[in-house]
Amino acid sequence: MSTSPGLARLPAPPYHAVIFTSQRTDGDAGYEAMAARMVELGAQQPGFLGLDSVRGPDGRGITVSYWRDEAAIRAWKQQTEHQQAQRGGRQTWYQDYSVRIAKVERAYGKE
Amino acid sequence: MSTSPGLARLPAPPYHAVIFTSQRTDGDAGYEAMAARMVELGAQQPGFLGLDSVRGPDGRGITVSYWRDEAAIRAWKQQTEHQQAQRGGRQTWYQDYSVRIAKVERAYGKE
Repeated sequence: MSTSPGLARLPAPPYHAVIFTSQRTDGDAGYEAMAARMVELGAQQPGFLGLDSVRGPDGRGITVSYWRDEAAIRAWKQQTEHQQAQRGGRQTWYQDYSVRIAKVERAYGKE
Repeated sequence: MSTSPGLARLPAPPYHAVIFTSQRTDGDAGYEAMAARMVELGAQQPGFLGLDSVRGPDGRGITVSYWRDEAAIRAWKQQTEHQQAQRGGRQTWYQDYSVRIAKVERAYGKE
């Protein structure tokens, strides 16, 4: 499991990824606290492998979370507090977003 | 094809994604010009579908590029000018990076 610091360190593929791209609305409106809580909660979910998350100065963000399998992703999507956060995301925090579920087939790094 | 502005707009899955996470070294050393050129060149490659890219104030970045198939990804990796950029990335621009090749199986957005 890896949430920070540095880039996510993961086992060898295959595993699954959720690619979440988003454009924030202006203002915080509870966003930062929710985001920190979701990282904390997500990392406790069964099958969570790691996370990389970046937001730029223009409010565009990409979060990629890594999971053992599709079942782990579905369970996290249904988690009660996460469902509340998803509702807040649609209604308040994000002008726009996309969620893409993918199977990571191969990976390599600098070393 | 989509490179900016706004989030990438893509056809329905399946398609492939290259998830590139990186930590920049300090200083520019030609990085910004190379990065802009790679976006321009990549968008001209056969099978390129779109791109989302964000870098945070701490130098951590995530770029996700989307491709029609694995063959398109392999062809882009072999492209001559891109190979020079990859060499510069290993030697100069990135403290650390990971590349993950994934098949996007499903996707949804705000609308």
